[in-house]
Amino acid sequence: MRLRMGGTLAAALLLTLAPPAFADGLIDNVDGVTLDGNGIVRRFSGIVITPEGRVAKLLDKGDKRPDELDFRLDGKGQHLIPGLIDAHGHFMELGFFALRLQLFDTNSLAEAQGRLAAYAAEHPRPIWVQGGGWNQERWGLGRFPTAADLDQVVKDRPVVLGRVDGHALWANSAAIAAAGITAATKDPPGGRIIRDAKGNPTGVFVDAAQALLNKAVPEPTPVELDRAFAKAQEILLSSGLTAVADMGTTLADWQVMRRAGDAGRLDVRILSYGSGVETALAVAGTGPTPWLYDGRLKMVGVKLYADGALGSRGAYLKAPYADAPGERGLGFNSDAQLKNLMSRAAMDGFQVAVHAIGDAANAQVLDAIDQLAETYKGDRRWRIEHAQIVDVADLPRFGRNGVIASMQPTHETSDWRMAEARLGPARLEGAYAWATMLKLGSPLAFGSDFPVESPNPFPGLAAAISREDEKGEPAGGWRPQEKVTIAQALAGFTTMAAHAGFAEDRLGSLEPGHMADFLLVDRDVMVVPAKELRETKVLETWIGGRRAWVRK
Amino acid sequence: MRLRMGGTLAAALLLTLAPPAFADGLIDNVDGVTLDGNGIVRRFSGIVITPEGRVAKLLDKGDKRPDELDFRLDGKGQHLIPGLIDAHGHFMELGFFALRLQLFDTNSLAEAQGRLAAYAAEHPRPIWVQGGGWNQERWGLGRFPTAADLDQVVKDRPVVLGRVDGHALWANSAAIAAAGITAATKDPPGGRIIRDAKGNPTGVFVDAAQALLNKAVPEPTPVELDRAFAKAQEILLSSGLTAVADMGTTLADWQVMRRAGDAGRLDVRILSYGSGVETALAVAGTGPTPWLYDGRLKMVGVKLYADGALGSRGAYLKAPYADAPGERGLGFNSDAQLKNLMSRAAMDGFQVAVHAIGDAANAQVLDAIDQLAETYKGDRRWRIEHAQIVDVADLPRFGRNGVIASMQPTHETSDWRMAEARLGPARLEGAYAWATMLKLGSPLAFGSDFPVESPNPFPGLAAAISREDEKGEPAGGWRPQEKVTIAQALAGFTTMAAHAGFAEDRLGSLEPGHMADFLLVDRDVMVVPAKELRETKVLETWIGGRRAWVRK
Repeated sequence: MRLRMGGTLAAALLLTLAPPAFADGLIDNVDGVTLDGNGIVRRFSGIVITPEGRVAKLLDKGDKRPDELDFRLDGKGQHLIPGLIDAHGHFMELGFFALRLQLFDTNSLAEAQGRLAAYAAEHPRPIWVQGGGWNQERWGLGRFPTAADLDQVVKDRPVVLGRVDGHALWANSAAIAAAGITAATKDPPGGRIIRDAKGNPTGVFVDAAQALLNKAVPEPTPVELDRAFAKAQEILLSSGLTAVADMGTTLADWQVMRRAGDAGRLDVRILSYGSGVETALAVAGTGPTPWLYDGRLKMVGVKLYADGALGSRGAYLKAPYADAPGERGLGFNSDAQLKNLMSRAAMDGFQVAVHAIGDAANAQVLDAIDQLAETYKGDRRWRIEHAQIVDVADLPRFGRNGVIASMQPTHETSDWRMAEARLGPARLEGAYAWATMLKLGSPLAFGSDFPVESPNPFPGLAAAISREDEKGEPAGGWRPQEKVTIAQALAGFTTMAAHAGFAEDRLGSLEPGHMADFLLVDRDVMVVPAKELRETKVLETWIGGRRAWVRK
Repeated sequence: MRLRMGGTLAAALLLTLAPPAFADGLIDNVDGVTLDGNGIVRRFSGIVITPEGRVAKLLDKGDKRPDELDFRLDGKGQHLIPGLIDAHGHFMELGFFALRLQLFDTNSLAEAQGRLAAYAAEHPRPIWVQGGGWNQERWGLGRFPTAADLDQVVKDRPVVLGRVDGHALWANSAAIAAAGITAATKDPPGGRIIRDAKGNPTGVFVDAAQALLNKAVPEPTPVELDRAFAKAQEILLSSGLTAVADMGTTLADWQVMRRAGDAGRLDVRILSYGSGVETALAVAGTGPTPWLYDGRLKMVGVKLYADGALGSRGAYLKAPYADAPGERGLGFNSDAQLKNLMSRAAMDGFQVAVHAIGDAANAQVLDAIDQLAETYKGDRRWRIEHAQIVDVADLPRFGRNGVIASMQPTHETSDWRMAEARLGPARLEGAYAWATMLKLGSPLAFGSDFPVESPNPFPGLAAAISREDEKGEPAGGWRPQEKVTIAQALAGFTTMAAHAGFAEDRLGSLEPGHMADFLLVDRDVMVVPAKELRETKVLETWIGGRRAWVRK
């Protein structure tokens, strides 16, 4: 704990015996709730904050209030909860996603064209217009869109827009010309250029052909990077997230985060997992960084990948896909490769977080952990990211080695129909199995995988307790036996998300000595039904005892 | 100015009216000297240091000493001078240079073999033994050394040693095998593999053929990088350097420096110039970083190259080399390219430092500055690094635009014979022209280009005032009209080196408010002759009011 005061001021204080300039602060008259490390609910009506931005004390109604205070705020009965933590997101991608043109909810080509026109007018920079979310089927277009459709709206700047599924790019003529793609350009292996009768590209580039365009898109400038960072942070703060795990920080991302920290622009706490072992070694060297910028940034570990995703049938399964009998997805590494990567990271004391979606991928990571746990003793907190489809026989192996299941409730409500199609009924037993994970003793941390899903944690909390989506489907919840309680859900976004990042000594719970990271929200999240929980509005976001965001 | 005190302690003080815990400190009874920003010599007998590590006041003999002090040291009449600043060095390279095997002073193959044996025994890691400095002519060997000569000493680990001139590598069989070089390997363009009658490589790889080996050498691990950093810092501290400009910090170097800063292992102040524009943009984004780690690290600008070096005839000359009539060296960029690079850096507010050795390269940079200065107004402090061979007609152009001549006195004493050979008599007028630079109003900063030369600044000071080398040659100094006074030389290594890095508000002079960076040395540097000045021993190195190094 540190006090910082100007030398002259300190001297003056000594002479005058004035009250200390930086005493505690109090937010009183709140309907406060937090969990302790054991998930026990604690209600309180006042929170005392130290000058260093930590929790000094929680006060009940009858408790005496401190006499000397630096500030005293009347909470007017508002609901105060711990700052929420997203255990799995992508910080910079969120910023870029939010800054680019999004067409997910457009219902016609004309609507998309209108959006593009407005976006291009509002955003003279960057020169290249990027975005995505289009779906010609949703538009009822009956054909792929074309470069000409875009040229009608934007002709003088390159435009490149991704299809909703990420499997195609739609470009205007300026972008195609900038990329040097002509009738003479061959389809790359695994990719296809949509062409007219004369072989000229018409504007859509499928799968591997997307790379032909992408390599022409300029790298973001420092200004664009800093802007994306700021945008992401603003979204996170307004969502009530006071800390996030950034899953796959690149060396370039890290410089942007440090720049924000150096300039005092870093508010949200970032637990960074380096993109691959090389990044962690280059940044942090022989072990995690210290907490930097008053606990705002730390490189904790390494993010690795064991497989792909369910939607594209890249998730690595033990048995073939139900809807593609010849396919089992693909493990990204051999067993030995994966174990070696995990070992290299663990050797230098980094935490290891491995993306695994399919049951074969999960088993592969669990196998590796079984073996590595013999060498790397102590509290390693191996993490499996997503842990979506797990063989029932493998589920107990999480708890056995204290393996953290880092899961995303909104993935379940977005994916359940697809999961049924991909997997058939037999394999659903271990799918998105939150309650079972807890029952079997696995630490369960929650997140959103933003920007794949919205970073807003309240739909996540709602999904966790209801397994219904925003339309209330399926009524009663999908595989409702895997619902968790609101206390368990809140733990997933607070204490367990902190535990998942070795930060339970400072984050997740409003215990004395922990960071004073909390939210004022517009309802009692512990009692409202899922439908209302989902709609919770954050009124204020406090980080380190300072108001970092206020709803306008 | 900041006081840091524990909250509890501060509270206790308020109650007891005890004297402040962190009052000023005093080093008294010293023979102190500093320069002010105008180069005026100021003598003093005591220095008062604030708790924050800045100079509070300089005291003369008769001045009253403060009553309340946190510490008081008796300097016992020792000589106190400002911490010296090297305006041009290579931090990480210095560390690696010092950690690797050096054979510069060996006089026979057998002596070199003995050194290698001892080094390999003392250094089990890194596996690859690296080093350099061998010279078969000095050894009187009458042939190139061979892999077999090395295998006799070290067989089980790869060994790669550079020739004294950097134009050849000598490798043992393990290294050649690891690099996959065989009789079938062709000589690369611009390179030659020395071979036996059967075409097998014998162990020496000339010029471009060195790359065949170098690409097999593993990248340094984080442990090795941190060790090189620590070694470099130790050498700099023991040399009396309290700040250095790192000329060409790579993105990887920067991570190592930040790691040291984050861990509190960074003592020497580093003014970093990113290696190329991309590095500065990636690290610092849209302008120099703030001072980080209590003023220990800042990325100030960008290092660029206009040409090569004189020794290898890479320096870019207006007229052919005197000793190679067909050659003029090579400018690394077209005029437009160089100007664009400089403009990109200047656009984001970075200081621009361009390596230019030959007169054509210097003219090219001066031309670019003439043009850029119209666009980038204000205090830009364009730097030319080395500025060794300048056309007399171009010399006044430095002063005109306030261009900093960042020069290395020991390069002159090392190179003068070679310079005469390369240039002939006519072009020496503007060679290493320190006094003329000053006369014409160019800010003149001094450094060493470590590890090309020793980082020890005292031989640099001695060379600056004598233009004689360590043997006293040539007697009376080479082109003695270019000698500078000791005050000018000291300014080059203090106030002007600070000015050259936009740090004259805090470094270089022991003025009130500046950092308390100073040395205790064993003689009065202002009065001793060059021969003695060269031998000055640093007794203690203080940085930010803390003793950072003490001679044992």
